[in-house]
Amino acid sequence: MNAGYFGSRSEEIKAFLRSHLEACVEEFSFLNRWGKDLPARIGAFARGGKFIRGGLVFLGHELAGGRPGETTLKIAAAIELLHSAFLIHDDIMDQDRMRRGMPSVFWQFREEAHAKGIEESEHYGTSMGICAGDCALFIALRLISSADIPDGVKDLVCRESYAIGLAQMADIDYGTFSRIPSEREILDLYLWKTARYSFSLPLSAGAMAGTANEELVSALWRLGESMGIMFQMRDDELGIFGSENAIGKPVGSDIRLAKKTLLIAITLKRLDPVSRSELTGILGRRDATADEILRARRLIETSGARSELISRMNALAAETGTMIDALVAPEDSKEHLRSLVDFIRTRDR
Amino acid sequence: MNAGYFGSRSEEIKAFLRSHLEACVEEFSFLNRWGKDLPARIGAFARGGKFIRGGLVFLGHELAGGRPGETTLKIAAAIELLHSAFLIHDDIMDQDRMRRGMPSVFWQFREEAHAKGIEESEHYGTSMGICAGDCALFIALRLISSADIPDGVKDLVCRESYAIGLAQMADIDYGTFSRIPSEREILDLYLWKTARYSFSLPLSAGAMAGTANEELVSALWRLGESMGIMFQMRDDELGIFGSENAIGKPVGSDIRLAKKTLLIAITLKRLDPVSRSELTGILGRRDATADEILRARRLIETSGARSELISRMNALAAETGTMIDALVAPEDSKEHLRSLVDFIRTRDR
Repeated sequence: MNAGYFGSRSEEIKAFLRSHLEACVEEFSFLNRWGKDLPARIGAFARGGKFIRGGLVFLGHELAGGRPGETTLKIAAAIELLHSAFLIHDDIMDQDRMRRGMPSVFWQFREEAHAKGIEESEHYGTSMGICAGDCALFIALRLISSADIPDGVKDLVCRESYAIGLAQMADIDYGTFSRIPSEREILDLYLWKTARYSFSLPLSAGAMAGTANEELVSALWRLGESMGIMFQMRDDELGIFGSENAIGKPVGSDIRLAKKTLLIAITLKRLDPVSRSELTGILGRRDATADEILRARRLIETSGARSELISRMNALAAETGTMIDALVAPEDSKEHLRSLVDFIRTRDR
Repeated sequence: MNAGYFGSRSEEIKAFLRSHLEACVEEFSFLNRWGKDLPARIGAFARGGKFIRGGLVFLGHELAGGRPGETTLKIAAAIELLHSAFLIHDDIMDQDRMRRGMPSVFWQFREEAHAKGIEESEHYGTSMGICAGDCALFIALRLISSADIPDGVKDLVCRESYAIGLAQMADIDYGTFSRIPSEREILDLYLWKTARYSFSLPLSAGAMAGTANEELVSALWRLGESMGIMFQMRDDELGIFGSENAIGKPVGSDIRLAKKTLLIAITLKRLDPVSRSELTGILGRRDATADEILRARRLIETSGARSELISRMNALAAETGTMIDALVAPEDSKEHLRSLVDFIRTRDR
C-alpha cells in the first residue's frame, strides 16, 4: 500500500474526528458523566483502526475528479465511526475481549464494573456496550446527515448498514450449527459483511460526493466488491498462517474457534474422509494443543486449499487490475488503487 | 385522550409502516432468510405500541397549520420504528421477557434457539436482539433520510437519539448502586429518556415539517417536556398502584425490582427512619411476598408521597393547560392536545 497516501489521509481524518468528538463533549457534557466519557472512549477506539475506509472516501472523491474538503472529511469520519459502532456491537456478540490492541469497549465497561465490585459486571458490560455502539451510530449518522452531499449517498449508507445487520444475523446463525456453510454462503457473507460496506461504499460515496457520473460509481462499486472479497480471503489465510505479533490474535484461534471461513470450506472439500475427520476433530476445540494446531495447519496446507485460495486471490487481483485500467479517472489516483490492491493481498496484519 | 384522533392516526401510520416494511422485504429477501423474517418481526413488535409518538407528529404538523401527507407519515413511522429499536435494545439490558403483550424480541430469538436445542441460546438471543435493534434503527433513519423535510428535523432526530443513549447509560449506572438517585437526577432521566424524545421530538418534528415558525417549535418543545414528565410520573404511580391486567406487568414488579422512580425517592424522603428501613428491606427483593408488596404500597401511600406526586402532576397539567391556551394554532388541534394531557394523567395503562 502507498503508506504515504493512506497514511496522510488517515491523519487528516483522525484530526477531524478528534475535533468533532470534542464538539460532542462540548454539547452534552452537562447532561451526565457519559457525555464526556463516551466520545473520548469512542475516539480512542476508532483511532486504533487502519482508516482504509476513510482513505477510500478521499480516493473515491479524487477518482471522480473532485477536490476533497470538509464534506469528504465528514463522510470519511462518519464511515469510520459507523465501522467502530459495528465493531463495538460485534465484540459483544463474539465475546472478543481485545480489539485494535486494546480491550474491546464492552470489555472495558465490564472490567471497570468488576474493579468496583459491581455485581453482574458481565451484564453491565453488555448493556453499556450496546449503548456505546448505539451512541457511536448516532454520532456517525448525524455527521452524514449534516454533510452537503447528494441524498443518494445518505440513502446508500443506511441501506448498506441495514444489509450488514442482516448478514451479521446469518453469520450468528451459521455459528449455531456444525455444518460448514457452502462456499456460496460464505462468499455472500464476505460480500455483504465486508466487501460492499468496507470498500464499495466508501469508494462510491466519495465519488458521488465528487459528483462522479453513474458509470464511474458503478465501476467503483464492482471494484470495491472484488477488493473486499480479496481482503477477506487474505484474512482467512492470516487467521491460520499469520504470525501472532502481526495479526494481534493468538495463532490458531481461527482453528480453535472453528471459524467458518472460505479457506476451511475449501480444505474440507479437498481432504479425503480420514484427514477430513481428523481436521474436524481439532476444529472448534478451545483446548487444542500447539501440536494439534500445527497438524491442522499442515492439513490445510497439504490439501492444496491454501494454494487454491492464493490463486483465487491472484485471479481477483488480475481482474481488479483490468478494472482499474479501464477507469476514466486521474492516473495518480488509479495508482493509489493499484498499491492498495497489492497491500490487500500481501499484508501481514 | 381523544381516541378518535389518535386512533385514526395510529391506523394510518400502521398501514404505512406495514407497506414500508413490505418494501424492505422486497428489497432484501434475496439476501438471506432474515431479509424476510426481520421486517415482519419488527413490524409485529412496532404495531403493539400505542402510536402516541406517531400521532404527535401529525398533531405537530397540524398545529403548525400544515396538511399532513406522505412526509408526515414517513416521520411518524420512523419515530415509531426508532422507539421500537430502543425498546428492543432496552429489553436486553433490563432482561424484560414480555413487552407490548408479546415476548420481547431478544426473548423470541432466545426461545426459538432453545426450542431448536441450540447451545448458548441465551447469548444467541442477546446477539440477534442487538442486530434486530440495529436493523430497526437503520430502517428508521433511512426513512427519515428519504423524507423531504428541513435538515433541522433530521439533525434533531439524531441528536435526541444520541442523548437517549447517554441517559440510558446513566440509568444503567444508577442500577449498580443502592443509593436512590436525587430527585434532580431522576427528573433529568425522565426528561432525557422520555419527555424530550417521546413528546417534544415528535411534536416539534411534525411542526417543522409543517413549516412552523421558531416560536411555535420552541413552545411545542417545552410543552412536550412537561407532558412527558407528567407521563412518566403517572407511570411511576401505575407501577405501584396499577392493576396487573391493565399495565401488563405483575403488580409490585417496580417494588421487587427496586425501580428508582421519583415516587420511591419522594417516599424515602418523607418516611421516618423506622418505616424507611422497613421499605428498603422490601425494595429489590425478588422473592417479596404478596403481603410485603401490600405493606410497601401502604407505606408509599401513607407517607403522602402518592398525594405529592398527584399534586405535582396536577400542577404540571395546569401549566400545560396555560401553554396550550397560549399557542397560536388551530383550535381543534389544541383541543386534541388538551385531551391528550387528560389521558396522560388519568390513563390506567
